[in-house]
Amino acid sequence: MNAELPHVLIVGCGFGGLEATKVLDGAPVRVTLIDRSNHHLFQPLLYQVATAGLSAPAIAAPIRHMRRHQRNLTVLMAEVEHIDKAQRRVRLSDGQELGYDHLIVAAGATHSYFGNDQWQDHAPGLKTLADAFKLRARLLSAFERAETLPDEASRAPWLNFIVIGGGPTGVEMAGTLAEIARHTLRDEFRRIDPSRAQVLLIEGSDRVLAAFKPAQSAQARAQLERLGVQVRVNCRVVGIDEHGVDLQTADGGRERIASRTKVWAAGVAASPLARTLDVPLDRAGRVVVDEHMNIPGHPEVFVVGDMAAAQSLEKDGSRKPVPGVSPGAKQAGRHAAKQILARMNGRSERPFRYMDYGSLATIGRKAAVADLGTVQFSGLSAWLFWLFVHVYFLIGFRNRVRVFADWAWAYFTFQRHARIVVEPQTPHDPPDVF
Amino acid sequence: MNAELPHVLIVGCGFGGLEATKVLDGAPVRVTLIDRSNHHLFQPLLYQVATAGLSAPAIAAPIRHMRRHQRNLTVLMAEVEHIDKAQRRVRLSDGQELGYDHLIVAAGATHSYFGNDQWQDHAPGLKTLADAFKLRARLLSAFERAETLPDEASRAPWLNFIVIGGGPTGVEMAGTLAEIARHTLRDEFRRIDPSRAQVLLIEGSDRVLAAFKPAQSAQARAQLERLGVQVRVNCRVVGIDEHGVDLQTADGGRERIASRTKVWAAGVAASPLARTLDVPLDRAGRVVVDEHMNIPGHPEVFVVGDMAAAQSLEKDGSRKPVPGVSPGAKQAGRHAAKQILARMNGRSERPFRYMDYGSLATIGRKAAVADLGTVQFSGLSAWLFWLFVHVYFLIGFRNRVRVFADWAWAYFTFQRHARIVVEPQTPHDPPDVF
Repeated sequence: MNAELPHVLIVGCGFGGLEATKVLDGAPVRVTLIDRSNHHLFQPLLYQVATAGLSAPAIAAPIRHMRRHQRNLTVLMAEVEHIDKAQRRVRLSDGQELGYDHLIVAAGATHSYFGNDQWQDHAPGLKTLADAFKLRARLLSAFERAETLPDEASRAPWLNFIVIGGGPTGVEMAGTLAEIARHTLRDEFRRIDPSRAQVLLIEGSDRVLAAFKPAQSAQARAQLERLGVQVRVNCRVVGIDEHGVDLQTADGGRERIASRTKVWAAGVAASPLARTLDVPLDRAGRVVVDEHMNIPGHPEVFVVGDMAAAQSLEKDGSRKPVPGVSPGAKQAGRHAAKQILARMNGRSERPFRYMDYGSLATIGRKAAVADLGTVQFSGLSAWLFWLFVHVYFLIGFRNRVRVFADWAWAYFTFQRHARIVVEPQTPHDPPDVF
Repeated sequence: MNAELPHVLIVGCGFGGLEATKVLDGAPVRVTLIDRSNHHLFQPLLYQVATAGLSAPAIAAPIRHMRRHQRNLTVLMAEVEHIDKAQRRVRLSDGQELGYDHLIVAAGATHSYFGNDQWQDHAPGLKTLADAFKLRARLLSAFERAETLPDEASRAPWLNFIVIGGGPTGVEMAGTLAEIARHTLRDEFRRIDPSRAQVLLIEGSDRVLAAFKPAQSAQARAQLERLGVQVRVNCRVVGIDEHGVDLQTADGGRERIASRTKVWAAGVAASPLARTLDVPLDRAGRVVVDEHMNIPGHPEVFVVGDMAAAQSLEKDGSRKPVPGVSPGAKQAGRHAAKQILARMNGRSERPFRYMDYGSLATIGRKAAVADLGTVQFSGLSAWLFWLFVHVYFLIGFRNRVRVFADWAWAYFTFQRHARIVVEPQTPHDPPDVF
């Protein structure tokens, strides 16, 4: 590549970083894409890996393989530790530094425990494949553990599953867990009855899927309950330890629930890389960006996706926050890359406008809700629509065929083919339970 | 189940334990099968998971799902820590104890570093899915690491791969690694040329695949070299650290080879559980068993598979050691279970005779050797035969279809679909390489 060409550095290969990279294919720039992992992850299906419905390679693909034909692109598997916007350089965790002419930061979000980081070990969240494997091992091992124990009292905490947070991830985890307990594991145990496992979904506000219309939240809740999930709203988690969860209800009452397996789906915070930019952040640690995804005073630095607090300029002139969903990240990544090319030609794009194609959330077998703006629907039709959209947007032909085949198999057999515990989870399993 | 029935306890669900379990299906016994993991692993294809050709669920299946229809069977995911043959009890790692009337110990083997346990971190072996994931991450990350480095000198040790041990595992790992470097990764890197990576196979004896006839060892070596592997025989490893390997040649000469990625395929030792039986062991720590796989003085205790040093009574009255391969473990497991049932009826099986159907070893694309006793062949025909046999013996229809499809895809595209690093490997990657 011609070292004279402007250098565009992209940090993170989620939906935002990947779209920006694609826009720059063939453009007169050198592109470097840096990610901590070697793969792009189709995060909307990550809960399927955590719940043993899909294997990891079905929803992930090596970045350099996906983009091998893009001749102006260099992919580096490395971690960016610091951004020096004055010197236009980033520092990697191994000490190397890279300069840039244009920078797109798309490092995503991580879990937030709202200052209670000690909860993390007891209630892992779900952002990466490593998280999904850890959750899969814990969920499956809990049933295994219960089967080894001598009496009802010692088994009970292993058959109580608590999902914290009633957003899309919490709803799909709870619904799928209930399906596993009631259908997938049927007839496979001798001492316990997996269908008697309890799945509890805890939500702090007054309804699940708060981003949807209230009627749809009610439908989602009804579908969850039909699948066997107990839904608790207006209920805050005030403590989590190895043996259970402490709840506080709206009237101030306290309750303790024994459970050995907790899933955190309650809070996200922007990547800590945001702080190294030294610009204003919102409460979730996201970088406040302008109508071109730029930070103040630096038209060469863009922040997109879950790391950014961005506004969409609507047709009526109003501004609406861009939601933290994959279409938002994709559109913002595309905008940033186009704006770089426009500026190289002395032009500018129009201010960013988010195209809202609607919202979808899956709940479980034959259960989902869809809000396409003008039309809302739920149940089987929404579930089929959800399946179609997710297979359609998945990475590459091969993964589409595979996921479609896996889902067809699972639908008819109630089986989940990836019920493999790669590394037995023992740390949360001390001898004192006996 | 009727608690009055004799209790058969089986430890380990590899090939030996699984076959024994199947024989006891429907018999008037209670069977308990204990394994540390939740899955039966088709170990002959484990190297495919380590080299990103297959995902883990393709070669593993949940034990309790596989045997869900066996009503006299209870499956427990637990670790047996000690066997008390006088009291006829085993102790689990969580402190629980289980009694038995008949015991089949089939806990397999682990790596042996011949007293150099400090080599383990630098040169991991390949026995479990966790091992395979660790190796996969190291192999793929080595190319990634080289791509991030600024100059040839710092990259070289990351592009040297050393496989230690020229048995079946070492040969298939080396051959596949060479294929990855030369074909799979082609055109995907910008700073390095993966096809210039060196793959070195080190063997202490004078030929690879020593269990085969010398002419076949020579064919295997020629095929390895055609794939791009450098083979070094009569060469012992005398030191392994983070940065390389120290070799000693037959003439006593020493050599140091820089390499950041080493694979251990040189030695196995029986599971340490063997020692708790307090009976004679051979040099590899295997339990010396009689013609019914029993330990001395305890006709109710059987040891089968890689944990046992067993003899086969041949037709001519001679005795031959049973080889440590999956047909050996399967036949021994079957024999032990049949002998339990025979003794319950006051009879006995005939002494164990190993049925040798031949030996197969794969080397890489279109390369393998086969020895079916009366006929030997190698190359493409042996490779196709190897493919057929391994798909045939794989667990269940679903996995067969999947592996067949994956291999067909890989054959035509040269791609390996599971090139996913789940957890970036950083421990072997300190800052001092810069």
